[in-house]
Amino acid sequence: MADLNSLDVLIQALRRLPGVGVKSASRMAFHLLQHDRPGALALSRALQVAADQMRHCERCHTFTQADICATCLDPRRDASKLCVVETPADQSALERTGAYHGLYFVLMGKLSPLDGIGPKDIGLKGLFDRACDGTVQEVILATNFTAEGEATAHVISEGLKSRGLRLTRLARGVPVGSELEYVDLGTIAHALLDRR
Amino acid sequence: MADLNSLDVLIQALRRLPGVGVKSASRMAFHLLQHDRPGALALSRALQVAADQMRHCERCHTFTQADICATCLDPRRDASKLCVVETPADQSALERTGAYHGLYFVLMGKLSPLDGIGPKDIGLKGLFDRACDGTVQEVILATNFTAEGEATAHVISEGLKSRGLRLTRLARGVPVGSELEYVDLGTIAHALLDRR
Repeated sequence: MADLNSLDVLIQALRRLPGVGVKSASRMAFHLLQHDRPGALALSRALQVAADQMRHCERCHTFTQADICATCLDPRRDASKLCVVETPADQSALERTGAYHGLYFVLMGKLSPLDGIGPKDIGLKGLFDRACDGTVQEVILATNFTAEGEATAHVISEGLKSRGLRLTRLARGVPVGSELEYVDLGTIAHALLDRR
Repeated sequence: MADLNSLDVLIQALRRLPGVGVKSASRMAFHLLQHDRPGALALSRALQVAADQMRHCERCHTFTQADICATCLDPRRDASKLCVVETPADQSALERTGAYHGLYFVLMGKLSPLDGIGPKDIGLKGLFDRACDGTVQEVILATNFTAEGEATAHVISEGLKSRGLRLTRLARGVPVGSELEYVDLGTIAHALLDRR
């Protein structure tokens, strides 16, 4: 068998990636060493730089290398709309639609009482301060449609409802391209309720 | 959206891993930055060290940090048996069985004429020299049971058959734990032929 030490260390390190077990990690390690050493070094540098330089935007909490992220600084953005998402990945999905031109607030988590994650841990105070800065007129709740995401949206709407803001939630409904026959009943029920 | 630059560079670098597309790469990057920065730095170091230090054993061509790997140097190994495998991952699978105590020769590839990979590219000359060193008495062909693996085994057996060595191939047969009803016919036919 190939020597232990640095190969094993690499396999163990790759296993820390989400969704990567020991088999995938071995395959990745062997691939990089056998076919793509420049790729291994590029990944090494990229990890180092990102872990060193990435921090949170002071306004929206997303990842950025500057104090304030490019989205928050963009003057073409509609500052009267604030879209609340759980993670930068969710924000990125919304951005890729090209259908939203307001600003964001990234919670970097969600309420999850079972895991001991309460309102303080996801910085709801910061969100409430931001939403009540006088510029924001509409808060769009775009947390996920999971139990935790719904609970998070509920707590935020409770916290903001007396502040004179317009509070909206992403529409629940039938996914584009799908056939009713195969859509789950809860989704169809919501699509009926929210028909327009 | 989160700033480009070092986050995007990281996502692109992660995409060079086998089996990782842009969605998985984003998830990995966000996970490391959000929840496991020590993991990101550990992976960065492990990649750097492995890419710098890993080279091929002079005797068996597997990955090692020394000139000659620990397996080749182990005096308890039976040097009269030489098992030919395609990759260190295959070698590792054989080692984990605990059923083999001979030495290895790792081709680091397989014949693949369609990809322009011929006998010279996978170092068959080195294998032939090694097999005819006077110590080796049996060569066990453990290349994969794919078209390329079978072709590789065939070429090796042709090259070695006049040298007075015992040439064997891993048995083809019904996998342990499986039911005949669900095993493919080619495998059952081989299991019949190779019955003992």
